[in-house]
Amino acid sequence: MNFVAALSEAAEKNLRVLEDQIAPAIGEDPFIFEACAPLFKGGKRLRPMLFLLCANCKTSTPPEKTMPLAVALELIHTASLVHDDIIDTSKTRRGVETANSKYGAQIAVLTGDYLFAKAFQLVAENNYDAQVTSTLSKLVKNLCVGEIMQDRRLFQIPTLEEYYTQINLKTAIFLSSCCRLGGIVAKTDAGEIENLAAYGTGLGLAFQITDDLLDFFGDEKVTGKPRGGDLKSGVITLPVIRALETSKKSSELREIVTGGGSVDEAIKIILETDAVGWCTARAKAHIESALVNLPFTLKTSVTLALEQIASFVVDRTR
Amino acid sequence: MNFVAALSEAAEKNLRVLEDQIAPAIGEDPFIFEACAPLFKGGKRLRPMLFLLCANCKTSTPPEKTMPLAVALELIHTASLVHDDIIDTSKTRRGVETANSKYGAQIAVLTGDYLFAKAFQLVAENNYDAQVTSTLSKLVKNLCVGEIMQDRRLFQIPTLEEYYTQINLKTAIFLSSCCRLGGIVAKTDAGEIENLAAYGTGLGLAFQITDDLLDFFGDEKVTGKPRGGDLKSGVITLPVIRALETSKKSSELREIVTGGGSVDEAIKIILETDAVGWCTARAKAHIESALVNLPFTLKTSVTLALEQIASFVVDRTR
Repeated sequence: MNFVAALSEAAEKNLRVLEDQIAPAIGEDPFIFEACAPLFKGGKRLRPMLFLLCANCKTSTPPEKTMPLAVALELIHTASLVHDDIIDTSKTRRGVETANSKYGAQIAVLTGDYLFAKAFQLVAENNYDAQVTSTLSKLVKNLCVGEIMQDRRLFQIPTLEEYYTQINLKTAIFLSSCCRLGGIVAKTDAGEIENLAAYGTGLGLAFQITDDLLDFFGDEKVTGKPRGGDLKSGVITLPVIRALETSKKSSELREIVTGGGSVDEAIKIILETDAVGWCTARAKAHIESALVNLPFTLKTSVTLALEQIASFVVDRTR
Repeated sequence: MNFVAALSEAAEKNLRVLEDQIAPAIGEDPFIFEACAPLFKGGKRLRPMLFLLCANCKTSTPPEKTMPLAVALELIHTASLVHDDIIDTSKTRRGVETANSKYGAQIAVLTGDYLFAKAFQLVAENNYDAQVTSTLSKLVKNLCVGEIMQDRRLFQIPTLEEYYTQINLKTAIFLSSCCRLGGIVAKTDAGEIENLAAYGTGLGLAFQITDDLLDFFGDEKVTGKPRGGDLKSGVITLPVIRALETSKKSSELREIVTGGGSVDEAIKIILETDAVGWCTARAKAHIESALVNLPFTLKTSVTLALEQIASFVVDRTR
């Protein structure tokens, strides 16, 4: 299932315009284009789509006011993936060879930096106000703080609170900022902007918890990532945190996750507990909270799309 | 010699204020502060100083209008060094252990990203106009393009033109942008801004050529870098380009620089040619061109400081 199926004709058109604007944004230098273009293939475009929907939540905002920022959001997301792949030494992403594997860490670091810079240039040159640049820079900063926090605590078991702090910083604030930016560009009122942002936060928390479940229990052929990748690299996520609390074999599980033992064994232990159901229920609760925050005053087509994106986020298989 | 000796009392005071503002700018998260603080020790602060001088080139601009951007420029410079050190796998920088060596590539990539984001946040939250963000994002972008270009051509001999394109992108545009930003913040007239920028370009080209000479012929104890580091990592710079043209042993030199042979042998061959004198003369010519561009209308103290910075750039030993 893809959330694009849920979009109205206008939103779908926006998404096509977005696709056409990515290439020119990275096309100034032929090599950089060659290095970057594959990175944009196969993405869900969730972040720019959330922004575009919120930017058109009450009346239509002209594309020239939305597209540069929509592109900037996808550039930032892709830059963070490029830098993530250096860290993970992953060989593929979205089914395509990573910049890191193809050109080495040097070029990959610089390519990511280029994409970040290009995103801020797009925003600076298209008359967005300072609030937009500020929101954008803060989301990048929080993303880094969240990732650093995670990276500093590899093979350590986080408390539930620490886990939530991390996923908020590295995922939820990004999605929430996309919705907030949409509200800012649409010049909708301050209360509604906060509600849109709260929708994004709930969506983001649910998105990350679902990601964590998919890492253990997803179909490798569909996710495109090796099963248990998080655990192998020392990232301890919600299913483990829950299983450690309820499993009879929690000391065995603790040993595996803190020492880098067998992923298959860890999965077996987790499956014997209520962790999958419990995590799924939490993800659904965050989605409920997201939906409750949607203002009543939005266009029906936008409400519908945001609701369907919410379903997609918890039901997705990749 | 340090260019700080050349500064007027007002400029020196500005530099002290700058030092005090770096810590709060990176102090939001205790770990990030711990990781970043050493990176700022021992820097020359050339970039923020150029900006501050140009921002006060005719009348005094209040510190609250200059300091956030001065700090942002030093954050960007440091971020680029952090990412450079990942690439170079250097163990020390400015005499201090690099973030890469201390915390690993993961944290180093993210720390650099954090500093970039923080720089843009400082600019966004201090009421600078879009021209400032645009200049800043373009200089980061050009820096990346220059570094990528250099990295793609390791162990290949660049033409003189290619060499200049690279050093312009990776160094001169940065220094030039610092001067330009000063002019923008000072709201001086467009012609003068272009002249300040041209001063920065000449300074930047001379700075990089001097850097390239120091890499071969500097005192390791003073530069803090191993001699011939560029050559070892495959970066072919101006002294080599010149020596290849005039040396009787140019085929031997070509073999060393394209294959990663003995640095000492390469230095010996270069020293038998006119390359050092020729490169020094070129650096001095760029400095002359920088000075010619300085507008007559600047405050005497600023003119004096910019002139002394120009001398420092070619006479420095580190």
